Amino acid sequence: MKIRVYYEDTDAGGIVYHSRYINFCERARSEHFFAQGVIPGDGEKSGFVVRNITAEFLATAKLGDMLEVKTVIKHLKNSSVVLRQEVFRDDTRLFGMDVVLVYIEEGKPRRIPERFIALFENFNA
Amino acid sequence: MKIRVYYEDTDAGGIVYHSRYINFCERARSEHFFAQGVIPGDGEKSGFVVRNITAEFLATAKLGDMLEVKTVIKHLKNSSVVLRQEVFRDDTRLFGMDVVLVYIEEGKPRRIPERFIALFENFNA
Amino acid sequence: MKIRVYYEDTDAGGIVYHSRYINFCERARSEHFFAQGVIPGDGEKSGFVVRNITAEFLATAKLGDMLEVKTVIKHLKNSSVVLRQEVFRDDTRLFGMDVVLVYIEEGKPRRIPERFIALFENFNA
Amino acid sequence: MKIRVYYEDTDAGGIVYHSRYINFCERARSEHFFAQGVIPGDGEKSGFVVRNITAEFLATAKLGDMLEVKTVIKHLKNSSVVLRQEVFRDDTRLFGMDVVLVYIEEGKPRRIPERFIALFENFNA
Repeated sequence: MKIRVYYEDTDAGGIVYHSRYINFCERARSEHFFAQGVIPGDGEKSGFVVRNITAEFLATAKLGDMLEVKTVIKHLKNSSVVLRQEVFRDDTRLFGMDVVLVYIEEGKPRRIPERFIALFENFNA
Repeated sequence: MKIRVYYEDTDAGGIVYHSRYINFCERARSEHFFAQGVIPGDGEKSGFVVRNITAEFLATAKLGDMLEVKTVIKHLKNSSVVLRQEVFRDDTRLFGMDVVLVYIEEGKPRRIPERFIALFENFNA
Repeated sequence: MKIRVYYEDTDAGGIVYHSRYINFCERARSEHFFAQGVIPGDGEKSGFVVRNITAEFLATAKLGDMLEVKTVIKHLKNSSVVLRQEVFRDDTRLFGMDVVLVYIEEGKPRRIPERFIALFENFNA
Repeated sequence: MKIRVYYEDTDAGGIVYHSRYINFCERARSEHFFAQGVIPGDGEKSGFVVRNITAEFLATAKLGDMLEVKTVIKHLKNSSVVLRQEVFRDDTRLFGMDVVLVYIEEGKPRRIPERFIALFENFNA
């Protein structure tokens, strides 16, 4: 998953605004779903929500940089999944985070449907 | 309607990213509705959508600036309304736009409901 | 220039937030520059700034849609350029705008440098 | 620090996009600086950068909600500071994070200048 840094991603400090790396990681997760013709959630009814993020900001990116997001599954449980996502520019790691996603229906954690489990197993392929 | 410029509003050029002024104007319109306990739209079913924007970018704003959005009604028609919105820093006009909003139901233009007409008439008060 | 619609581009109305189309067009313009290893501006010192936008919102895009931005030069003048940019989903035109960019140095309009003129001429190729 | 939820903060799930809470917290930190007529950083030369974030997403916010960000200092060290920031809607805690900010000059951690230490001490007042 390649992501170009555009003006809207940068701030007056001349670098990518810190929370944009978290957006980039969400794009990479969603792209896995979209590529299978699937939407990660069904409005407010059901879907994956972010429960926890533990993030390290290691280096900065600039306007015009071409970044890459790498995603691996750390744990796949009944109703949640822990992903490790990292953002690189060439061989330089700029950002890393562990993100916990919970599958919810009507606001409550529920067993992740089969079709999504197969999809997550593809992440590490 | 006062709006502070934060990092997320600026870009690597050191100034407010151009389309953010259009967001600021949308905030000002929505605030009129929220202040009355009303939402400008009801999801995809009905509500106001932006049909046209004619915008002039006159001067730039910087991180930490305190801006003000001024809104007046230019025309109020059966199913649409034309607003003039301007963004100022003190006495300096930075941005101006005419925006045409259309009221739609199920994707089609419809007569603006009474409760919204009263609300728009408040804009110029 | 292909652009995927991600969660961050959508709003509670279930569709792409109106000013995002203007961002998408800016990405397409910048990509032309980045692809040549050039940055459209040099911080606050010099570069292209948006002076006017005249935009029509014709149809809506949804989460996961794959969009395309098409850009053509309408007028190339001494210190400014008028572009026509349109956003499509397959054959459906969702958005169109004329945007006037002015080349500035130290805050004043200046003759567009040769290297940028050649680059703009590539837009229509 | 009160923050209204506008359309641009929400996504197609009908709720506030997850990384926006991190933006809201940054606004609250910056507001402390702006209110003293100070900018948290001096472009790429010096200033505070986010090094780590540990965040919990506890409940969701919707369009039109009025939120409040509360910030306290957890640790103030030579070249870094740990803040606890939480976002509330009335008495409901929606979001919490510990954020580590490092003061850098020319890309290297440096002792936090006196004027900023005084400012941080105000956070808990």
